[in-house]
Amino acid sequence: MPNESTALTALLAEHVVASRWQDMPAHVLREAKRSLFNFFGCALGGCTDIAIEHALRALAGFSGPREATLIGRAERLDALNAAYFNAMSANVFDFDDTHLRTVIHPTAPVAPALLALAERQCVSGAKLLHALALGIDIACRIGNAISPGHYNRGWHITGTCGVFGAAAGAGKLLGLTKEQMLWALGNAATQASGLVESLGVMAKSLNLGNAARGGLIAALLAREGFTGADHAVEGRHGFLQVMGDKPNFVAVTDGLGQYTELLANTYKPYPCGVVLHPVIDACLELRANQGVRATDVEAVLVKGNPLLRVRADRKGVTTGREAKVSLHHSVAVAFLFGKAGVKEYVDELVNDPTVRALGSRVTMEDDAAMPVESATVTVKNKAGRSHTAHVAHARGSLGRPLTDAELEAKFRDLAEIGAPEVDAARAMEAVWAMARAEDVGSVLRLTRV
Amino acid sequence: MPNESTALTALLAEHVVASRWQDMPAHVLREAKRSLFNFFGCALGGCTDIAIEHALRALAGFSGPREATLIGRAERLDALNAAYFNAMSANVFDFDDTHLRTVIHPTAPVAPALLALAERQCVSGAKLLHALALGIDIACRIGNAISPGHYNRGWHITGTCGVFGAAAGAGKLLGLTKEQMLWALGNAATQASGLVESLGVMAKSLNLGNAARGGLIAALLAREGFTGADHAVEGRHGFLQVMGDKPNFVAVTDGLGQYTELLANTYKPYPCGVVLHPVIDACLELRANQGVRATDVEAVLVKGNPLLRVRADRKGVTTGREAKVSLHHSVAVAFLFGKAGVKEYVDELVNDPTVRALGSRVTMEDDAAMPVESATVTVKNKAGRSHTAHVAHARGSLGRPLTDAELEAKFRDLAEIGAPEVDAARAMEAVWAMARAEDVGSVLRLTRV
Repeated sequence: MPNESTALTALLAEHVVASRWQDMPAHVLREAKRSLFNFFGCALGGCTDIAIEHALRALAGFSGPREATLIGRAERLDALNAAYFNAMSANVFDFDDTHLRTVIHPTAPVAPALLALAERQCVSGAKLLHALALGIDIACRIGNAISPGHYNRGWHITGTCGVFGAAAGAGKLLGLTKEQMLWALGNAATQASGLVESLGVMAKSLNLGNAARGGLIAALLAREGFTGADHAVEGRHGFLQVMGDKPNFVAVTDGLGQYTELLANTYKPYPCGVVLHPVIDACLELRANQGVRATDVEAVLVKGNPLLRVRADRKGVTTGREAKVSLHHSVAVAFLFGKAGVKEYVDELVNDPTVRALGSRVTMEDDAAMPVESATVTVKNKAGRSHTAHVAHARGSLGRPLTDAELEAKFRDLAEIGAPEVDAARAMEAVWAMARAEDVGSVLRLTRV
Repeated sequence: MPNESTALTALLAEHVVASRWQDMPAHVLREAKRSLFNFFGCALGGCTDIAIEHALRALAGFSGPREATLIGRAERLDALNAAYFNAMSANVFDFDDTHLRTVIHPTAPVAPALLALAERQCVSGAKLLHALALGIDIACRIGNAISPGHYNRGWHITGTCGVFGAAAGAGKLLGLTKEQMLWALGNAATQASGLVESLGVMAKSLNLGNAARGGLIAALLAREGFTGADHAVEGRHGFLQVMGDKPNFVAVTDGLGQYTELLANTYKPYPCGVVLHPVIDACLELRANQGVRATDVEAVLVKGNPLLRVRADRKGVTTGREAKVSLHHSVAVAFLFGKAGVKEYVDELVNDPTVRALGSRVTMEDDAAMPVESATVTVKNKAGRSHTAHVAHARGSLGRPLTDAELEAKFRDLAEIGAPEVDAARAMEAVWAMARAEDVGSVLRLTRV
């Protein structure tokens, strides 16, 4: 059984180098494609966020050859900067994918490093999806070994583990040798960074940008013979022991090669805390199928796992950021608009008197027997009648993954918000067809302005 | 007394913004200048190291406008890349300055960020030295709060704390407001990285490069309104609590404004472990003043603090890297060549039979009463006579700081090794005159090829 004396970094390097895209099973290919699809939607949605605009104003002037795509935008930047900005765009709304066991958002730090490379050298869609699958899986495996302590201590795990995935995937596309791949992982480990303290301010996005950019740099350096530490993952002063307490070393390689962690990836239907998702599902169900009208609602009672109260019992919030973890706001918009998308969480709407009034009618009750992905919502209307809906598996949970059609609806919404000039239908079609693309660059071109 | 509820990040921001270069006392100005002088020497020495060459080959192609100096080299790169590479060059030999309480090498991560800015906007030498003094002092203060646990856990403290110094100094040169400076420190905190596991391989240099580059980026972003966390230093999930165990919050601000930590900076006379310095001093003394000839040495007995044995009892080493922490090698070259410079620690010399033979005659004895900066060396020659030398304060220790003339000799040696085409005499003169320079760019031009 692996422990701190097992050469985990070397095992990972060997695994990545030996893996062949031809051997990737269809269901793995499919999930890699869904992760990438969801990523593009999120990046299109976030690419004009104020944090991205500020960062571009500060840093674009230092860009090298402007040969790489910024998803959803008209500017081009050098490959390293493209990796940096696309990673920030994809995560800025916190609407990207989630590996539930670790709460890593794995595609945002990994995919941009690979896409940037794919615009420098011709990469087929199949090879890109393979490298992406490897990268996502490895980032999450390293996260598994130190969860939940690592995040709880204050590490923004998407950044700290994402850099490994970006390095592994980029190294795969660069065709690194086993020794070079080892160095790439070592170069990644020493760049791992990102504090939870930054969540809630723009600095959060640096954790994403640095993971993608740092991972790409790690692989590019390794190709030139720039050496990383042999035991960067498992060593006495390596990543797991320094940034985790009592690492579970076995988790890194357990089931390696079966892409178990990529297959455990999930996609959010709503840009808010995961605990709120079954509640929103239930409200939408009541509105659509039981005729509940927002104007008739007298009181709403939500039953859910106690974590729902801990995370989201938040009445009278005033900003979109807070609203994303507010039960009251989420219930109100679901009944009022039949939607809980990015537009339903903007500051303006949060302060709308109608939304606030409806939110104030929501109360909750703990039910410890209920799993986090379940909820029951009961509405009493002004005539005194009650309606109840129970959701066993929230949309987007592992028990009820988003369908491809739901991912498309999300993509379309996001593209309209952040990059209305992009032809979303064509872009979606091209991403779905990625496995047959001869040159990833041709797909990327459809995602820019 | 400050604790985790004190707004340390805000106090630091306020301090940096309020500080005026006109108020910097002469002895502070002098030490900032010596730190910068020593930095330039080290950067000239290291700028053609193999790690730098590899990194340049991997990354120079992504450079933006080539307007900034790479010290000691002919290439120019964009300002961010110049900060990155100059920081790596200055530290690659581990011959740069040391803040002993934390073992931070403070100037290498800080100065390059400021110098790169000084080539974009006209900065006077006095303002540069002021920003450098602030940056060095702050990096070391943050380190004080988490030493020695932080380094012992496996954090390469020069990188993790250096980024704060670079951000503070760069923010000062950019004229940030108090709010922007707060964000700059927050943007720096979330980028802090660097593992001790990387010491001994090239990846170590990434910790330096990222600190300088990340600090500069942190300040540039803040100027554009990119928000960092308000409590990034002291917060529950901020730098000190996440990366340190039981932080000593008071150490961050204790004596702030007096530049106590800059004034505690030291400069190495030899490119090897600090514990070896008094031993080398004693050997050189025996050779120069007591007529000890290497060919006559029968046995060498070294008495020193037990830490000397822990760190440097290393016979029969085969690489320059190991030799830097080998008592036996260091004693041998001191007697054989009357020197222990960069050239005395190259692989070839380490494997020279004469050096190895003399090294094998060295034994050591612990003396717990002796401080680390002291040592006694006794030589028995082949005729049976004994010579003894005792060093109370090693050269370069706080008890016997390197003189300006010694710094010059070091600068000259290093420049000759790494950048023989640079006119070292002119460059030295210009750095000594930095406080009167109207434009730092004109000094930088003298340090490049």
